[in-house]
Amino acid sequence: MDQRLGVRTVAFSNPPVILESAATGSKKESEGKLAADFDLLVPDPLWEEKSWETAESKFLKHAISIAVEKAGIEWSKIGCIVSGDLMNQCTSTAFAIKDFHRPLLGVYGACSTMAESMIVAANFISSGWVEYAVAATSSHFCSAEKQFRTPLEYGGQRTPTAQWTVTGSGAAVLSAIGTGPKITHATLGKIVDRGVTDANNMGAAMAPAFVDTMVNHFKDTGRSVLDYDLIVSGDLGFVGRELAVRLAAENGLDFSVNYDDCGCMIFDRVKQDVHAGASGCACAGTVFCGHLMKRIRRGELKRILFAPTGALMSPTTCMQGESILGISYAVSIEQ
Amino acid sequence: MDQRLGVRTVAFSNPPVILESAATGSKKESEGKLAADFDLLVPDPLWEEKSWETAESKFLKHAISIAVEKAGIEWSKIGCIVSGDLMNQCTSTAFAIKDFHRPLLGVYGACSTMAESMIVAANFISSGWVEYAVAATSSHFCSAEKQFRTPLEYGGQRTPTAQWTVTGSGAAVLSAIGTGPKITHATLGKIVDRGVTDANNMGAAMAPAFVDTMVNHFKDTGRSVLDYDLIVSGDLGFVGRELAVRLAAENGLDFSVNYDDCGCMIFDRVKQDVHAGASGCACAGTVFCGHLMKRIRRGELKRILFAPTGALMSPTTCMQGESILGISYAVSIEQ
Repeated sequence: MDQRLGVRTVAFSNPPVILESAATGSKKESEGKLAADFDLLVPDPLWEEKSWETAESKFLKHAISIAVEKAGIEWSKIGCIVSGDLMNQCTSTAFAIKDFHRPLLGVYGACSTMAESMIVAANFISSGWVEYAVAATSSHFCSAEKQFRTPLEYGGQRTPTAQWTVTGSGAAVLSAIGTGPKITHATLGKIVDRGVTDANNMGAAMAPAFVDTMVNHFKDTGRSVLDYDLIVSGDLGFVGRELAVRLAAENGLDFSVNYDDCGCMIFDRVKQDVHAGASGCACAGTVFCGHLMKRIRRGELKRILFAPTGALMSPTTCMQGESILGISYAVSIEQ
Repeated sequence: MDQRLGVRTVAFSNPPVILESAATGSKKESEGKLAADFDLLVPDPLWEEKSWETAESKFLKHAISIAVEKAGIEWSKIGCIVSGDLMNQCTSTAFAIKDFHRPLLGVYGACSTMAESMIVAANFISSGWVEYAVAATSSHFCSAEKQFRTPLEYGGQRTPTAQWTVTGSGAAVLSAIGTGPKITHATLGKIVDRGVTDANNMGAAMAPAFVDTMVNHFKDTGRSVLDYDLIVSGDLGFVGRELAVRLAAENGLDFSVNYDDCGCMIFDRVKQDVHAGASGCACAGTVFCGHLMKRIRRGELKRILFAPTGALMSPTTCMQGESILGISYAVSIEQ
């Protein structure tokens, strides 16, 4: 049995291993600061497909394929694929994985999905149900703009607080045995509603949920901020990251030293026109499965706390005046 | 550790208990064959709300509240709520549960969600992470028609193979200890694509996935069809049920005796104009959490195999000519 810590955290008695991971991206990602850490960069965001939606599925399909190939695991041994995305009815996931003929557990955690999928996959491994599992997610700038805001052809003006959805996918192969970084602890996310209604300022809507998860993680585990080489949120961006540092301080957590945000890391703020940073499920997904996993494997990071953030909303709820709900899951990973 | 059986099934070493469950419904459900088994029937589908979407959340919120109250569990002890729905970005779930202040695991399995949420919740209990968990789902005829087909005001003609989305919600409280029916086995779902593209014939699209899960369940467990008092699919409806019986026979499974479908059970085919039966996440959700749980508790059913079915598609994928992908999860429940 795993050890329940406090209200929301678990310490895995037999920590699942991240055998391998892979990240796919497109043009903007190839021009960004972490380009070298992607496994595959396809400059054309349409990738010879007929629609942005099928292209997104292709980025996800390839990330999973590459990760499984790198791990050297036979497909028949993959007990389940845990994945989700931003598209209505999570269709990027469904169409990406259908030809793998493996069991699916579809999850929805908006941009926190990379951690939610890792947590569910880790739990299925920990309970003994599956031997190997894939955790994955995807997003696509063009399909997301079309669905959540306006079609690209409309040429809408972006606000300074707007973030740029990462095109691509991250996938990780988890296992009960083998060599690689381990998932030692995980903290579940809880919805935090601070009444933010500006759909162009997701960072502000998600920062309180991130800090709530951090407060609970440290309380539950008894760890302190400096026990981690790096604490990394998902896609708060420049506006949200600043807010998170302030909110953390108000809660007695000093995030000024070892904290960063995937949404601030992936693109070049000066050279790339991304306003408040990056976003999308693939933001945390690719930064973790590409950049962070490489740094952990190289020994540069020995222990990190990975905490993607999600905004639970839809164009319909926003138009109906509902607030944007935030959620954040945290995963402790050790070399 | 739980016992992995074959490729897709688990036998829980300490079977999670379904402490209590609750079902909420609206007018059509109150006129149906299983009206007496609902915990709450609110004739007005708008339930004093301003939109169909917020009304759907209200049906879900109340189902969860009633189930937790019936179980007599303090809210603070609920380790997580596992829930999903059909609305874009699963917003029915997010807005239903935000005020419960409990951890959320959002899942998406289309109309198979009741089983997917039970499986994930059972696994989190089995691993020791949470003591109590809620598994839930919802759907709403009006929000679903508006989102997937046409607004009600349009007055679109329904085809003979069309099914009627159940308005309401089912919720179950699962626990590691206590008294109640137990989840002894579960079989994961896998996407089955038979190339069906008619969005008005979901039964045909989902039946092959249901039979695929059945074949694997019986192979993995070594059980036979008659080991169950009842095998029940989610929302294949009259067209899909007939197809399922035929496909099962082709696979050596005789489903002529103890098999039924929630989509054929909930409404009165003669008196209620529902064409090919019922559908929606709340179809399997309410029939299980209301009707079936009552029959199990009364001792009429000692062992059932509950296997909701989902169609993984969106209006976008359908308009782009993609086929409708089917999936089905199965849960063995014993008194």
